[in-house]
Amino acid sequence: MKFYSFWRSLAAFRVRIALNIKNIVPDEIVTVDLMKGDQRQDAYKKVNPQMLLPALVDGDGPILFQSIAIMEYLDETHPQPPILPKDPRGRARVRGLALIAAADSHPLVTPRIRAYLEMVMKQDEPSRNKWLQHWTLKGLEAIESHLKNEKETGKFCHGDTVTFADICMSGQVIGATGYFKCDVSGVPTVMRIYDECMKIDAFSRAHPLKQAGAPAH
Amino acid sequence: MKFYSFWRSLAAFRVRIALNIKNIVPDEIVTVDLMKGDQRQDAYKKVNPQMLLPALVDGDGPILFQSIAIMEYLDETHPQPPILPKDPRGRARVRGLALIAAADSHPLVTPRIRAYLEMVMKQDEPSRNKWLQHWTLKGLEAIESHLKNEKETGKFCHGDTVTFADICMSGQVIGATGYFKCDVSGVPTVMRIYDECMKIDAFSRAHPLKQAGAPAH
Repeated sequence: MKFYSFWRSLAAFRVRIALNIKNIVPDEIVTVDLMKGDQRQDAYKKVNPQMLLPALVDGDGPILFQSIAIMEYLDETHPQPPILPKDPRGRARVRGLALIAAADSHPLVTPRIRAYLEMVMKQDEPSRNKWLQHWTLKGLEAIESHLKNEKETGKFCHGDTVTFADICMSGQVIGATGYFKCDVSGVPTVMRIYDECMKIDAFSRAHPLKQAGAPAH
Repeated sequence: MKFYSFWRSLAAFRVRIALNIKNIVPDEIVTVDLMKGDQRQDAYKKVNPQMLLPALVDGDGPILFQSIAIMEYLDETHPQPPILPKDPRGRARVRGLALIAAADSHPLVTPRIRAYLEMVMKQDEPSRNKWLQHWTLKGLEAIESHLKNEKETGKFCHGDTVTFADICMSGQVIGATGYFKCDVSGVPTVMRIYDECMKIDAFSRAHPLKQAGAPAH
């Protein structure tokens, strides 16, 4: 298995956690430096024409792309331990929570969006930071409003086992706290569960700052 | 089953197609007028705290939210006819293509984003339109780059049966052609498959302009 990753990518972070939970060690990890624009070079464009991370090659391919699709694939091909509940309603809730982060929040703050706001819309840094904080927090608040009110919430987002929801939410929290310096005081359930997740080895060793190439901290 | 929808919502469009394919007729369709801001009213906020469409209530709840999570739920609870392939690699490809539209493109052009660009970033209409066209087309181009090069592409995005990928891509095409007036000449495979989809009753009667409340055309 060949995993295309970058320390800072929160979508790659999700897949790293899933791989760790499933005890899958990729044969090779290829660093695609998003800050240098490696994702737009021909070499990576051939791997993933969308020029986004992560991507995974399992055996002789074809390429697997989009973090949620990769997580579903890993859960189908390596069912133990599961990262989705068994019942359709539970699966829907977990996928819904995961998608609030992965579809409705994270795509708004990726490097290509930041570049567009700067280069095309000529937004200065304070304006761009406000955007990043706003949409990151919106996602966490939406997740919070589910978690705090729904009986399915347990030690983790859905009961007492980690799922897609915890994986995607954790990336969003790292974006909020580590990258964009959001005020997360309004999302206590999110933060309580994030802290719980980070006690788990599969989460903590997937942390962006623990990956090759990350800045010293 | 109670379906919260709006004619213009491309995420609701996805779920309408899935319901049609599965021959599920909701007992009630509740219109949430996104243009009047009904999604931010307390009545809907209680249904879906994220204040986004669509939402679905099946039986005594809880609420189902996020269109992709709803489609997965419908495919699990009403397996015939399937809208995902059977093999994990095929499922991953289909989900990946669907997510290019549903996660990486559509969330960038929804009403709340357009409102932020206008109200907070003070972007004029031409600048906002350029944004809408840019990201809508980026999504379709990414899908095109898969479709045109991969042997799995058939009459539809994945072989000769409609899947999540066709459903999500079709919404994106309606955004591109009907809403944002993009030049789609660079995505011929996408357009060929979209035309094929629209020959299917489940797709054509889900079209935004055929829903209650849509403007006459």
